[in-house]
Amino acid sequence: MDNFTFYAPTYFDFGKDTEKHTADLIRQFGGTKVLLHYGGGSIKKNGLYQCVTESLTQAGLPFVELGGVKPNPRSGLVYEGIALCKRENVDFILAVGGGSTIDSAKAIAAGSMYDGDFLDFYQGKAKIERALPIGTILTIAAAGSEGSPNTVITDEKEFIKKGAKSDCLRPRFSILNPALTCTLSPYQTAAGCTDIMIHVCERYFSNTEEVEITDRLCEAVLKTIIHEAPRVMEEPDNYEARANIMWAGMLAHNNICGVGRVQDWASHHIEHELSALYDVTHGAGLAVIAPLWMRYVLESNPHKLVLFATRVWDVAMDESDSHGVALKGIEAFEAFLKKIGMPSSFAEIGAKEEDIELMTDKLMNGRKTEGNYVKLTWDDVRKIYESAVR
Amino acid sequence: MDNFTFYAPTYFDFGKDTEKHTADLIRQFGGTKVLLHYGGGSIKKNGLYQCVTESLTQAGLPFVELGGVKPNPRSGLVYEGIALCKRENVDFILAVGGGSTIDSAKAIAAGSMYDGDFLDFYQGKAKIERALPIGTILTIAAAGSEGSPNTVITDEKEFIKKGAKSDCLRPRFSILNPALTCTLSPYQTAAGCTDIMIHVCERYFSNTEEVEITDRLCEAVLKTIIHEAPRVMEEPDNYEARANIMWAGMLAHNNICGVGRVQDWASHHIEHELSALYDVTHGAGLAVIAPLWMRYVLESNPHKLVLFATRVWDVAMDESDSHGVALKGIEAFEAFLKKIGMPSSFAEIGAKEEDIELMTDKLMNGRKTEGNYVKLTWDDVRKIYESAVR
Repeated sequence: MDNFTFYAPTYFDFGKDTEKHTADLIRQFGGTKVLLHYGGGSIKKNGLYQCVTESLTQAGLPFVELGGVKPNPRSGLVYEGIALCKRENVDFILAVGGGSTIDSAKAIAAGSMYDGDFLDFYQGKAKIERALPIGTILTIAAAGSEGSPNTVITDEKEFIKKGAKSDCLRPRFSILNPALTCTLSPYQTAAGCTDIMIHVCERYFSNTEEVEITDRLCEAVLKTIIHEAPRVMEEPDNYEARANIMWAGMLAHNNICGVGRVQDWASHHIEHELSALYDVTHGAGLAVIAPLWMRYVLESNPHKLVLFATRVWDVAMDESDSHGVALKGIEAFEAFLKKIGMPSSFAEIGAKEEDIELMTDKLMNGRKTEGNYVKLTWDDVRKIYESAVR
Repeated sequence: MDNFTFYAPTYFDFGKDTEKHTADLIRQFGGTKVLLHYGGGSIKKNGLYQCVTESLTQAGLPFVELGGVKPNPRSGLVYEGIALCKRENVDFILAVGGGSTIDSAKAIAAGSMYDGDFLDFYQGKAKIERALPIGTILTIAAAGSEGSPNTVITDEKEFIKKGAKSDCLRPRFSILNPALTCTLSPYQTAAGCTDIMIHVCERYFSNTEEVEITDRLCEAVLKTIIHEAPRVMEEPDNYEARANIMWAGMLAHNNICGVGRVQDWASHHIEHELSALYDVTHGAGLAVIAPLWMRYVLESNPHKLVLFATRVWDVAMDESDSHGVALKGIEAFEAFLKKIGMPSSFAEIGAKEEDIELMTDKLMNGRKTEGNYVKLTWDDVRKIYESAVR
């Protein structure tokens, strides 16, 4: 186990009707002038917008609004939000939505306390050291941004999707009411579950030895999704299954499943190029890429895939054929993704074979390798993309 | 799953040599005058005392000292610590030791900000709303106090051991260096592992349904201890096994394994009377009580014991004999405890049959029931104590 630090000071208010605590929580964490940040119209249709704005008004908490966050959130709206926060002296950002809205809020929070271009943070030119405090009301279990220090933004000029992170971006509070996720479409739900699983896999597939406790936590989250995802696909209103998925989604990405080890993240980075170019739903892109990444790395580094097969997918161990055992695990994962309606090929997500070189170039960007479980070269990445063409 | 809140803002600095960061962390969390609180002489023998005091001196951080914390920490030393903190204007408490030292530090931290008798908090007469900030350097993996809001103190006038809790008692930082635990005796190590397992069991044994994610996390911690404890019993210097146990010990009690459900805690409360009366090592007392509690509640409420058997101890499911399956799980647990050198009877811990009525009276203290998984009456508790006489 490697040395590590872990700091996750978000206050979670989890369960039915918890959105009613919004104004109290903002006050508790020092907010006096709020930016209400959200996405499309869904929170207006389901009554959440009204509930939140009434709560702020009744509490005498002044707020300004910025809606319109899109999936794979864009830099343009972030600039708008930064200008608004500076102009209106906002001191607290409330993100109501899924990972895209929260990631956009984090970019605004950091950009509002910075004199330069906020994209500096995403291009590795500057470190995020200060940010406005953020609170969230989560409406999609997927990205884990509600408990994480991470944010991913698409630079819409360059079609580049890049991440940044800082402990000061961890939300001060996150309100998680599973009932708010019951109206999600089956596709969004399944893509969210996939994203959750791959957040865990990026941490699980590591060559760092002797990380039994963290491996076991990873398996706990994966097994939960394997149990609960098919239930919500059949019964979208199943509050209990939604609740287990929602909390698992937070745990998958607040790094409790990743401490003490070198992590991978190749599947995410390979997928980001798909999201950036075709605006694919991130979880759906991961459903295509992650199993193909597993099949590719199996040839050179099977050991953690064997554990994945036996402990997560209950494949019987066969010491004489560990490669076959690992393969059965990957096949079980692929069958699971298919069952919940996720795609497995470029064709299903509208990606094109002729863009593979471009995506590989953009991803590698002059670097020699990508990922850590197996260090992938330019050629390896290209082959993984190519294996999705069928 | 029940509604819940979860807030665990402790900064963990985990790994080799992390005690060298002590002074920096105290400053980072605002300390300017420190109470250094510790137990017996072990930290002086192993060099930790010298390392910490040199670090504070070099950093120009003034400090006063209070050593002498004993296992099952006593009220007398807490009064001394409160007086010292008030007299010396201490604004940060550094606890160097195991759960007893940290619990004692928490009592001093709360008592220093309170005008009344600090025992009010432990007798349910007052709520802890303010406390001095605490940092810890952990030397025993067991109590989980390094990440928890809990503290347990023995009122030495009445020989009553009682707990209190408040989120403001969660340490600001905890330094966890597994190497510091390598010098623990086999008995202390095994008692610590037992304590960790029962912290999980108190949360696992619940009638709240649909808590898959938290059940899985509980099982992750239990399986880790089952894997690692026998390794450290054979190789006390095994850093990696110590590391997994140490982090598991934190996770077992910061309540990530307990959210969203009604918890039990009968075994702990039944054991506290043994610790208070005979000064038994808490984990050893739990090794006697917890399996007997399991055997007792099996008769009226087997369902979670079946899960414990099949998922934690890999007992094969037999739908026609769930009672037998559950019993095999308890037997596996008992065999495990025996293997790591833990006691299983009153005789082994110096407890006496003639005190059973007194302990039952003190525990029940006029209440009708104890615990939640099965609501135990006075008579049930007496029978559990009696089953330890052999």
